Amino acid sequence: MGVVEEKRVKLKKSIIDCDIHHVMPENKVKDYLPRAYRQRVDNFGFMLPSLFYTNGGTDGRASGSMADAFPPEGGTPGSSLSFLQSHHLDPFHVEYAILTGHSYSVHSSPDADFAAAVCSAYNQYNLEHWLSGDERLLASIFAAKQDPNLAAKEIDTWGPHSKFVQVIVPAGAEKPYGNRFYDPIYAACVRHDLPFTIHVSMEGTGLNAPPTGAGYVSYYAEYRALRAQVMMAHLASFIYEGTFEKFPTLKVVLQEAGVFWLAPYLWRLDQDWISLRSQTPWVKKRPSEYFRSNVRVTTQPIEDTPNRAMFDLLMEDLNAKETMMFCSDYPHWDFDSPQQALPKLDEEVWDRIFYQNAADLYKLPQRKLERV
Amino acid sequence: MGVVEEKRVKLKKSIIDCDIHHVMPENKVKDYLPRAYRQRVDNFGFMLPSLFYTNGGTDGRASGSMADAFPPEGGTPGSSLSFLQSHHLDPFHVEYAILTGHSYSVHSSPDADFAAAVCSAYNQYNLEHWLSGDERLLASIFAAKQDPNLAAKEIDTWGPHSKFVQVIVPAGAEKPYGNRFYDPIYAACVRHDLPFTIHVSMEGTGLNAPPTGAGYVSYYAEYRALRAQVMMAHLASFIYEGTFEKFPTLKVVLQEAGVFWLAPYLWRLDQDWISLRSQTPWVKKRPSEYFRSNVRVTTQPIEDTPNRAMFDLLMEDLNAKETMMFCSDYPHWDFDSPQQALPKLDEEVWDRIFYQNAADLYKLPQRKLERV
Repeated sequence: MGVVEEKRVKLKKSIIDCDIHHVMPENKVKDYLPRAYRQRVDNFGFMLPSLFYTNGGTDGRASGSMADAFPPEGGTPGSSLSFLQSHHLDPFHVEYAILTGHSYSVHSSPDADFAAAVCSAYNQYNLEHWLSGDERLLASIFAAKQDPNLAAKEIDTWGPHSKFVQVIVPAGAEKPYGNRFYDPIYAACVRHDLPFTIHVSMEGTGLNAPPTGAGYVSYYAEYRALRAQVMMAHLASFIYEGTFEKFPTLKVVLQEAGVFWLAPYLWRLDQDWISLRSQTPWVKKRPSEYFRSNVRVTTQPIEDTPNRAMFDLLMEDLNAKETMMFCSDYPHWDFDSPQQALPKLDEEVWDRIFYQNAADLYKLPQRKLERV
Repeated sequence: MGVVEEKRVKLKKSIIDCDIHHVMPENKVKDYLPRAYRQRVDNFGFMLPSLFYTNGGTDGRASGSMADAFPPEGGTPGSSLSFLQSHHLDPFHVEYAILTGHSYSVHSSPDADFAAAVCSAYNQYNLEHWLSGDERLLASIFAAKQDPNLAAKEIDTWGPHSKFVQVIVPAGAEKPYGNRFYDPIYAACVRHDLPFTIHVSMEGTGLNAPPTGAGYVSYYAEYRALRAQVMMAHLASFIYEGTFEKFPTLKVVLQEAGVFWLAPYLWRLDQDWISLRSQTPWVKKRPSEYFRSNVRVTTQPIEDTPNRAMFDLLMEDLNAKETMMFCSDYPHWDFDSPQQALPKLDEEVWDRIFYQNAADLYKLPQRKLERV
């Protein structure tokens, strides 16, 4: 139908992939918990709330992952470093890979202390089992949003470590993320100059609000399409609560909720800000200006526009050259190959989206090799 | 900034206005309630849940309405038929005006019996006090969505009346409107060939779900921009629950949540339907096909695109020539004049949006006068 699925684009340079889901197995993570929680997990399991919308495509075996992403030595997709290397990092010339994990259910547990302990365990596990194995790997700090002060402590622990490059939370939440409740998290992000990344997941689960503004939907396809609307709520919240005025250097990354809904949404926000700004005088700039200065969006799963003219106008409108970063979502079923995620782009725009914007955001060095 | 606020378009023909908010005063509506409820209202008032986001622009006096919409004889905007005539219907050559009322709070009351009685009272009041006063006026059936069987009864009462041309509900809801819970309402709509119109309002109020998929926002500007995301939930729900397969002749009107968000949203829905349709085999067609055959969208408040090329591509993509209908939202502060709501259009497209699409949907006659 549209423009996105045109023929493969040949990769001439290495890339940064901003969303790779690696596995942190519960039976290993458990060892990093305090003794009381280890006993609890031995007795009851982790008992974290789980998402009830069936992820995934039509291949039953793959259960949410690409069918060819199972490591030959056994285990689940994303669990083997050597297979991640040979299946994804090497062939696609991934210079840096931001690991985003898989266990956002910890963020929807009503028990904030347990959630904070599990997040600590994830971070420690990542350091010892993943980051040590390959220089290309970078980690996301898990921090329990249920208690922003505990989350800030966790960020202060890992923030100084150069391999931990962002804080990650799921889009599912009790309150939109601009709410002042979360301010200790942003103070910590700003202290360590770490982006705050919101990855779709766990909407409507556990202590999080129902997944839409009209309650619970029934099926995964609905839930999936509607993940954009949860991101909309977070984005408006950051702008109208004045989060970017309180924390001007804070960067927020919107991950896996699509991209092009942002254009009409920002027109709406700008239009209404002009009429209504007397109600929120602390919001100094147009919403689209905050978007451009403080927000980044990752590509997967980008909407397939009906024609190239529309694609080009939308990319221009969102200033994608500066705001967009490539990610693959490896190893999930809806993985975007860097060769097929976007149609052929102007070389400079391609370079910014597939490398430079992420390098700037995460303060990563220039490429080791200019040509691959 | 964009294209919408260009210079006024001269009206050459009469129009249909699909959203005019008239007043049904509580102290008059009360008289149409059963005796026990009259006594309850005398003692406690209507006690309906109210929206807690401050509507309206910057003019304090107008409290949500245009400052010049107050009738000279006193009373609130929308309360005077003669002023509605001289201020809006006559100067803008409104051939038919669909009255949409103002009291959607009835739909968020947890007491379904009381809500159903109040809806009946509204309908009776409209018949006696509004429809009798001007041939141009058409009414919306109020029906309590809290109990779809009671709602269906109410629709059966008014459906045969030629001046009641649609069923109206607010976007705020306990469940997305495609949920099978509401099927008795759609069976009644189809029996009487009446569109089901969802008008923004009452999101997060009373028994309705929180207004976003991340809970409660703080300010009106957020709430306003996020009304689109509640509509998104309803639209996906109709499609994925198979409502349009169960009721193929049902028409749904999306009112006052904006327009252009629909384009990327339908790309998303189509794209995911292709990948995931094996999970919902009862959804036979692409989501965008259901949109085109079963859904209509009204114009106000349309997003202001950054340039004309974008506007034209989006209008084409949404097949606005067949799916879009003009409305003004009179007398609210964000009223769209028919002379300024949209930039200059091709004459045939203008005619369909400002008259013919609504005439087809509501089965209204051709214009009395070809030129005004």
